[in-house]
Amino acid sequence: MVEHTGLDIMCLNKHCHSSSSSSSSEPDKKVFSKLKLSLSDYPRKNAEILSGQYGTNVLLIGAALMLAQGPSIKQEHLLSFITGLMILQLIWMMWYILVRDRRKNTRTEKDVHATTCWIRGGLTLLALLSLTMDAFRIGYYVGYRTCLSAVIGVYPVIHATHTIAQVHFLWFHIKDVIKSFETFERFGVIHAVFTNLLLWCNGVRAEAEHFLNNYMRRLSALGYENFTIENSEPLCNCTTSTCTMFSSSLKYLFPFNIEYHIFVSAMLFVMWKNIGRTIDLSSNHKRLATKTQGLILGPLLGLLALGSTIGVLVVYITHLEDSLQTRQSAITMFYIYGIVMLVFMCSASLSGLLIYRADNMPLDTSKNPSRQLDTELLFGSSIGSWLMSWCSIVAVLGTNSSPSYRWTNFVYSLLVVLEKCIQNLFIIESLYRQPEDGARKDPELPAAPEICSVSSSLALPYNGIINQGYETPDMACVTIENKQEESGQVYTCPTKPPDVPLPVGNKVVKPPKIKRQILKNIAIFLLMCNISLWILPAFGCRPQYDNGLEEQTFGFSIWITVLNFAIPLNLFYRMHSVACLFEVFRQV
Amino acid sequence: MVEHTGLDIMCLNKHCHSSSSSSSSEPDKKVFSKLKLSLSDYPRKNAEILSGQYGTNVLLIGAALMLAQGPSIKQEHLLSFITGLMILQLIWMMWYILVRDRRKNTRTEKDVHATTCWIRGGLTLLALLSLTMDAFRIGYYVGYRTCLSAVIGVYPVIHATHTIAQVHFLWFHIKDVIKSFETFERFGVIHAVFTNLLLWCNGVRAEAEHFLNNYMRRLSALGYENFTIENSEPLCNCTTSTCTMFSSSLKYLFPFNIEYHIFVSAMLFVMWKNIGRTIDLSSNHKRLATKTQGLILGPLLGLLALGSTIGVLVVYITHLEDSLQTRQSAITMFYIYGIVMLVFMCSASLSGLLIYRADNMPLDTSKNPSRQLDTELLFGSSIGSWLMSWCSIVAVLGTNSSPSYRWTNFVYSLLVVLEKCIQNLFIIESLYRQPEDGARKDPELPAAPEICSVSSSLALPYNGIINQGYETPDMACVTIENKQEESGQVYTCPTKPPDVPLPVGNKVVKPPKIKRQILKNIAIFLLMCNISLWILPAFGCRPQYDNGLEEQTFGFSIWITVLNFAIPLNLFYRMHSVACLFEVFRQV
Repeated sequence: MVEHTGLDIMCLNKHCHSSSSSSSSEPDKKVFSKLKLSLSDYPRKNAEILSGQYGTNVLLIGAALMLAQGPSIKQEHLLSFITGLMILQLIWMMWYILVRDRRKNTRTEKDVHATTCWIRGGLTLLALLSLTMDAFRIGYYVGYRTCLSAVIGVYPVIHATHTIAQVHFLWFHIKDVIKSFETFERFGVIHAVFTNLLLWCNGVRAEAEHFLNNYMRRLSALGYENFTIENSEPLCNCTTSTCTMFSSSLKYLFPFNIEYHIFVSAMLFVMWKNIGRTIDLSSNHKRLATKTQGLILGPLLGLLALGSTIGVLVVYITHLEDSLQTRQSAITMFYIYGIVMLVFMCSASLSGLLIYRADNMPLDTSKNPSRQLDTELLFGSSIGSWLMSWCSIVAVLGTNSSPSYRWTNFVYSLLVVLEKCIQNLFIIESLYRQPEDGARKDPELPAAPEICSVSSSLALPYNGIINQGYETPDMACVTIENKQEESGQVYTCPTKPPDVPLPVGNKVVKPPKIKRQILKNIAIFLLMCNISLWILPAFGCRPQYDNGLEEQTFGFSIWITVLNFAIPLNLFYRMHSVACLFEVFRQV
Repeated sequence: MVEHTGLDIMCLNKHCHSSSSSSSSEPDKKVFSKLKLSLSDYPRKNAEILSGQYGTNVLLIGAALMLAQGPSIKQEHLLSFITGLMILQLIWMMWYILVRDRRKNTRTEKDVHATTCWIRGGLTLLALLSLTMDAFRIGYYVGYRTCLSAVIGVYPVIHATHTIAQVHFLWFHIKDVIKSFETFERFGVIHAVFTNLLLWCNGVRAEAEHFLNNYMRRLSALGYENFTIENSEPLCNCTTSTCTMFSSSLKYLFPFNIEYHIFVSAMLFVMWKNIGRTIDLSSNHKRLATKTQGLILGPLLGLLALGSTIGVLVVYITHLEDSLQTRQSAITMFYIYGIVMLVFMCSASLSGLLIYRADNMPLDTSKNPSRQLDTELLFGSSIGSWLMSWCSIVAVLGTNSSPSYRWTNFVYSLLVVLEKCIQNLFIIESLYRQPEDGARKDPELPAAPEICSVSSSLALPYNGIINQGYETPDMACVTIENKQEESGQVYTCPTKPPDVPLPVGNKVVKPPKIKRQILKNIAIFLLMCNISLWILPAFGCRPQYDNGLEEQTFGFSIWITVLNFAIPLNLFYRMHSVACLFEVFRQV
């Protein structure tokens, strides 16, 4: 029955010659396979383009509503639109989880590269912070409910439901390689991708607005310029005592909510790319985690970086409200700190690249949409901060004024460009390198085993899902992949983590092991540096607003536009490179 | 000798363990092959990322200079930077043409999909118009030379040289699949891509500025608003009598110059993607051109569209300077005309898609960077006008005022979105469809033959190039590809176009032929409609500026930013879809 509903929707998109006329009295299985055959006639490329166009237009409608915020189009209109999209996604996810799972005869292949335990764990953490944010928003609405539109109360409720359902979906279905009903499911997935992307855009916009208002308030307080500051407070009094607490806590939760949505949309995009794909089983195995021996220097330096970052953040934010001279010294301090950090990061990435050059080996070129996307996102999100840096360099060279931080800004900006270039090279080469021979050719393990996920639930889909439900980083499930036949799949689930030494490096001579240790140290150091460089702009340390050099050269509105474009991309870059570096750390 | 220079440059990018120490007294050939082997060790993925990052940063420096235009950073700085880039590209092209061609032992495979005769012909035409523009610019500089910077005189001279050299390069080398010295040549090609992209950006910026100034002058003349209009005239008197003639003619040549650069950069990008690629010879053949029988309705309707477009353009531009009411009626006329056009275009594309659904066949999935790029560009450049249309829709729904064109604007905008979606589907499916069986399995031709280009000059590179030199659309060279062996390549060059009927459709039964004729008519009709919709905004018919609805909702600066982003993309979309539709027309 339910299958038919799905198909009727499908028929809108294509010419259903024979499928819709087949009688429903036939056995379900036969009808189903027949329909599947006819549906798969619709060219995959077209379905891809059609759904891509749908998603892009949904995002653009949202963008138009955001740009139109003013007297005629209000916040409420935008929120209603986003709420509508979230409800649609909820319905689709429910359909997917409830209806698809009942069909025991559909096979669901899994793409093990699509995600890892720790990514899902991290996302769950971000989701929890998002839920806290929703709770605060509801509290805020309750306080001001007499003068706020109902939409502002409904939005966080739907958002919370959406978050919970989505995390469930991510845990149990994100690795699915969809093969049946392609067009309909493709639309659902792309809808989810762009809904999350729109939520990201909305978060970024709200955050930028908030930051800009703060900046202008600061400028007015210092008597520099006279801006009319928009009053974002509602027009009535709060009925509870916690309203200001809620609204001031919200700004610390914003960055996490923003990262949550962009990460989810990247993961869903990989799922979309996987639709209809035939997984090459030979390359569809995860690499083994290695032990963490000899990890001293990297984490130590990383912790040092992290500690000093928090120090710099506190000093910067407290000094910013002070006199002109204190401001300038805070900005100078930031640039010197940045230069030291970036020099260390450049050297670390460079040494990593040199180690790779020392033992050249061919790169892994097998198809892997997840890795491909990682590469493209690293490259694409670098563009934001590259543009910002080049603008700073042009401003430094073109300006007539000479504040104390003029040339440190110049060096800092050059280093930002250089560091991103080298780090991208290092991360991408690391992701594309084939696993060491020791890991592959070890004769003690029959084939590439898999830890932390049940890779394919061919014959026992329900079982597989239950298994995954209890799957945690501590309880590893090893599936022997080469025996994946429909009749019998071998599950080897030890009740505690395998204490036997992992095979990587067992049969390898010393030097590579040392190299791997160095690489691991580099990866962990870079990871912590990137976290540091994420924390600073995320929590308000943005000297690009405060130093005044660029604003002088470019003018206020152009420079703010550049920053509104570049800073969110840069934040995403840092978070994304943390995720990639963790992957590198695990793989080396 | 010269090979060594190239290699020394290469060594900067990598670790040359053994290659640089090899003595130069050894026979050149041996050293060369040894070096080549060691160079190819450098991972291809890394070389790709490295060169991509270089190119992106070059573009971003240019973008920063453009954004900084003001009291401290002047037009001259930007032009000097671009001139420097062009000179670099000139040197690289000279190296490529002169040095590479001397090496008779290097094989150069060709990717026949990279370009076609008519694309090169069209580009040559655009290049000629660009050269005219350069001549006008030089004339303008001569008139005002007393008060203009020398850079403004040098720029058009270098640009003209650059254009001539580049057209030569496009004719004879754009299809090359580079396999030796990958990293160095990759940098040259990507440099060329981004230089042209920057020239495109610069053209777009100049054009947008020019249009905005005109618009504001019109508004001031009508007494609506009071803007300070930047005076773009130099501060001295012209010494010749032709200065105003030159500056007023320039604006009609702008659109062609802009299209020229974006097209060249797309073609060079395909060349970049092809570097190091192994061409699959079985799919590396062009499809045959079919006869133009039964082409009546499509061209007729297309000509009608084109004629009415020119009428609308003239009426619109002349009525725009008049009173408010005449303006409004001109705008209404434009929207009604647009709705009629778009409805016809939608129906045409839809019928094309229905014909494809009627005989479903699997799509061609062989690797083809050129087609891949075409698809991505169509999709990507649609985003501009989709955003613009959704903004219009939001403005219509949100506005309080009700000019006569309010709802026609609404319908028009919806149709723009719909038409682009359907047309994209039609074009992409056409490009991905495999050639008809009749064309492929015809036993009279030994294999897929090629018209209009020498596909592979393996053993006789010099010969091949001479052949190509005389290759024109009138003198087709048929190369039998399957006999490409190093020893003997068969050239079959008739001195006049082959009069023998081309084999496509010879062995096919009637109905497909009728279908093909319908598809051909659709393609030619859509092609002419797209030309029409390119002409209108390119030559000043931009109701989005003049109707005032969106400006009211979004505010002047946001709306102008949206237009500055969307209109150039839309212009590119139209031109690009014309190119794609011509390809469709030839292939069906």
